Order: sequence, then structure tokens, then C-alpha cells
Amino acid sequence: MTKEQFIQGISNGDIKTLSKAITLAESSIASKQELALQIIEHFGPQKNTFRIGITGSPGVGKSTFIEAVGSRMAGNKKEKIAVLSIDPSSAISQGSILGDKTRMNQLSSLENVYIRPSASGNQLGGIAKNTRMAMLLCEAAGYTTIIIESVGVGQSETEISKLTDLFVLLLNPGGGDELQGIKRGIMEMADIVVVNKHDGDQKRLAEITAKEYSLALHLKLKNKNSWTPKVLVSSSLYLTGIDSFLEKCSDFNNHIHDQWKKVVRKEQMKYWTKKNIEYLLMSKIDGYEEQINQDIDSGILPERSARNILE
Amino acid sequence: MTKEQFIQGISNGDIKTLSKAITLAESSIASKQELALQIIEHFGPQKNTFRIGITGSPGVGKSTFIEAVGSRMAGNKKEKIAVLSIDPSSAISQGSILGDKTRMNQLSSLENVYIRPSASGNQLGGIAKNTRMAMLLCEAAGYTTIIIESVGVGQSETEISKLTDLFVLLLNPGGGDELQGIKRGIMEMADIVVVNKHDGDQKRLAEITAKEYSLALHLKLKNKNSWTPKVLVSSSLYLTGIDSFLEKCSDFNNHIHDQWKKVVRKEQMKYWTKKNIEYLLMSKIDGYEEQINQDIDSGILPERSARNILE
Repeated sequence: MTKEQFIQGISNGDIKTLSKAITLAESSIASKQELALQIIEHFGPQKNTFRIGITGSPGVGKSTFIEAVGSRMAGNKKEKIAVLSIDPSSAISQGSILGDKTRMNQLSSLENVYIRPSASGNQLGGIAKNTRMAMLLCEAAGYTTIIIESVGVGQSETEISKLTDLFVLLLNPGGGDELQGIKRGIMEMADIVVVNKHDGDQKRLAEITAKEYSLALHLKLKNKNSWTPKVLVSSSLYLTGIDSFLEKCSDFNNHIHDQWKKVVRKEQMKYWTKKNIEYLLMSKIDGYEEQINQDIDSGILPERSARNILE
Repeated sequence: MTKEQFIQGISNGDIKTLSKAITLAESSIASKQELALQIIEHFGPQKNTFRIGITGSPGVGKSTFIEAVGSRMAGNKKEKIAVLSIDPSSAISQGSILGDKTRMNQLSSLENVYIRPSASGNQLGGIAKNTRMAMLLCEAAGYTTIIIESVGVGQSETEISKLTDLFVLLLNPGGGDELQGIKRGIMEMADIVVVNKHDGDQKRLAEITAKEYSLALHLKLKNKNSWTPKVLVSSSLYLTGIDSFLEKCSDFNNHIHDQWKKVVRKEQMKYWTKKNIEYLLMSKIDGYEEQINQDIDSGILPERSARNILE
């Protein structure tokens, strides 16, 4: 496909073309990435898009929650919703040991919804690099709300918060140790905290947990968006708490307004420039494989070998 | 302190000198890192050390488990045990929102035990970079067993597995979703899986969980060490399962034998050379701050700006 065909297809909101363009962006071949980049540059920045990052530990129910939220959003036919799901590939095997369940069936059947699982090819900070380009392509294709889902691991939360306007943290019910042990820095990034599984046996526990987080968060000043993080409960099972979540999203979107969003996105772009430099530099290290092997075989320390190679 | 004083102190097993040397290794000042490197190079590789990596989600009870295991190990007075604890600093604040409990009090009071919490200064893959140097310094000071503890986030597990001979994964009791949702690739790295909290209400659940993981792991072939991962239960509270854990550690150490350990460690060193190159390259990006700002302000995409800067 030519660049013009891509542009034509994406302008028409053609999902197959969009998917192919994202595949270009995810490619490790420089010329394909370049083509994807040119397509994005053609469209330029899109106005009035809303980018939501949703993260949480494995098992917290992200997919079900997004299915519920996305379906509700898609009820407004003027909205087009894209869900990009970042899935850190295994360093050794390519899959989970017990296989993956089929996800977000209902949501993916809706006409104004596009779902794209985005494998992270590169371990070196590249988790969300391609996701940014995928997001821009979705926006070019007219998607107004972009939901980026990420499993709650390591840097990926930081990266998701650098990609999105609104950062949502999903939690399991349960206080005590968990409140104590929560990964540092993640809480500070959240604009909305949702304690999920507010149902069945865990209903009361979810409420207690929400209360505790709410108190803890109110001890802090407003976050980077001059916004006091909101803490909610929800049940993706019984679809409770979804409306009030959407309300808070909308409040947040009004709160940050376009001017501030522009400022924040600019800051984010500076971050991504560095990430991209990093990524491109990393891909050059491969050329030194033999030198590295020789150094290590002759008993030179890794820290010394690295210094020598760079000199 | 001069290089000679450091070497003298470390040779004598002086803990204060060791701590100062690790601080050098953790420094962001090149000359200090260089000094640490020279000290390590002076001592060269140590024989008969055993490196154990222990990881698990926040709240799983890593510290209590290590306290129990370390104390038991330290009962053998011929052994010297060092515990290095990797603690990913917050990207925003420097601490957890509810503060940190004092950890491993009992263990730290033992004479043949050295405990060092190692903050990860750099986000870009540098999580365990300094830990490697800290580990080598501990080995130089005569520590024979090095336990590296890491909170179970993102890349840190991969990195811990690249630092150690034996990789231990601590899990909470609980199957179903959790078994489903476990982070991909981590299970495949484990040599020993310990289901903790095998006590009180959770005793039976811990057993069921261990059974499930055991079945799942036996569906797989032997791992990279030609070793079938072992699954155990333990209670750090009642100190059960600690002896059988130590037994498995010893079985594993006999299984891998010195020749294979040497091969694995060489492979690991190649990994760390690349990591170090990465880290050193990253520190150069800072010089392009202004160029990046200019590009973004004039509407150039991050992906384009990165390419331009590298050219």
C-alpha cells in the first residue's frame, strides 16, 4: 500500500487500513516506521481528543471494567472509542502459562469501537513507544476517546501516564498490607482510583479500601493536574459505579480544559523524544555483540567493557 | 578514602568500608563509579558464592520470608550472608504514601549478616545496575550467600534473574484469576516458587495454590537451568517451610554445579555489558534538552525529533 492509500483509508475511518498502519508503526523495520510516521505527520495533531490510561495489577479486572466503561461511552454514537491494550510480552516464552481468555468480546462488536492489543516488542523502555504512534493513528482516523490499558508492571504505568490526559488506577479490595505495599509513585500519578469488585463477599471490603485510599490521598496536595484524585468503587460484574466513573472522567476533562491539555501534552512529547532517542540508540548496541563476547570471555567486567566500547 | 584503604577495609570484612564502597558504586559521579569499579577489579571474581534472587508482589511478605531464611542460614557461622534490597524509587515523590515499616530487624542484628537497601536512582533500565556492583563488593568482602530482594515490578524481575544463580518467586495464596493473571514470563524464570502465608485462614488456599502452580509448571519442560521448578508452601509467621526451602536451595546449588554456574554467569555478564552501554548512552541524552524543547515547540513529532537529533 502506498502512503496515499493509507491516508485515504484512514481519512475514511477504514478499520483495516488503520490496523495496517498501526502494524507499520509497530514494525522493527526502519522504513516501515518511517512510513507510519509520515502518515501521522500528514494528519497533524487532532483536536478534542481525550486520552485515558487505565492500569492495575493482573487479576484486578481491567478488561471487564473497560468493557463496561467502553460500552457505556459507545452508547453516545457521536463518540468513537479506541482501546489500545499494552501487553508486555514474555521475556522467555510468548504467552502466559495457562493461556489467555478471550477479552472484551462485547465491546469489540460495537460499531464505533476499535480494539487493538499492542504487543511490546522491545524490553528497553519501548513498552509504550509504539502505542503512542498507534494512538495518533487512531486519532487521525477520527477516534475521539482513546483508552490505553496496561497491566500494572514496572515502568509501564509511568509510560501510560506520559501518554494520556487522565490516569486511572484500578485496585482490588483489601487494605492493610496492600495499602502499605502499593508500588511507590503510582498512587501519586492517579487522577481517579477505582476500587473494583465492589460486589458479593468483597463489597464491604471494597468500601473500606476506598475510604482508606481516599483519606490517604486527601492528605496529599493536589496532583500535577491541580486536581484532587477521586476514589470510587465499582463492580464490573453488576455494572455499578460505571456512571459515576464516567462522570468523574467528564469532570476531569472539563477541569483540565484545552489549554492545559496542550501544555501537558507538550511536556509528554518531550519525554517521548527522549524515549525515542533511547530506543534508537539501543538498536545500535546490537552491532557490538562480538566485542562484548570477546571482552567477557577474556575476563573484563561488564562495567569496564561498556566503558571501553563507548570510548 | 584512597583505593588502597578501601581494598584494605574490604579485605578485612569491615562493614563500614563495604558500605562506603557500595555508595561509591551507586554514585552518579563517573569518577566515584570508576573507583568502585577499580576496587572490584582488584578483587576479581570470587569462588563458591551463591546468589539468590527473591521477588514477589508488594504485600506478599518478602521481608519476613528473607528474615526467616536469612536467620536460619546465618546459624551456620561459616556462612556470611548479604541481603541487597532493590527499592524502585518513586518517579514523583521519594516515598510510599504511608511510609515504610522498619524491616528485617532481627536479621540485621546478626553478626555474619549484612543488609543493604539499594535505591534505584535511574529509571532507564538502571534498576539493578548498581546492585551488581554492590553484589560483587559484598562477595569481595567474603559474603558467600547474596540474597537480592526485589519488589515484583516490571523489568526488575528480569534483571534480578540476570544477577542471580537461583530465582525465587514468592506468591500469595489464591488461585483462579491470579493464576490466570500472573505476569507473563515470570513463572518461566522461577527455579523455586514459594506460596507464602501458609497459615491461619489461608492455609488450605496456600496448599491449593501450590498444587495448581505445581501442575502448571510440570506441564512445561525443564527451565533454562535444566531444572524442574519446585513449588513449596511456607509461613514466615510460624517459620514453617523454611527448612524445606533451604533444602531446595541446596539441591539447586548442587544441581547447577560450578561449571554451569560459570557459563550462566558469563551469559549474564554479556547482558550487563549491554545494560551498562545503555545506561552510559542515556546519560548523554541530557545534552540535547534544548534541541528537544525547540523541536517540540515548533510542532515536530517526538519520533521525528529523535531521528533528527541522532542524525
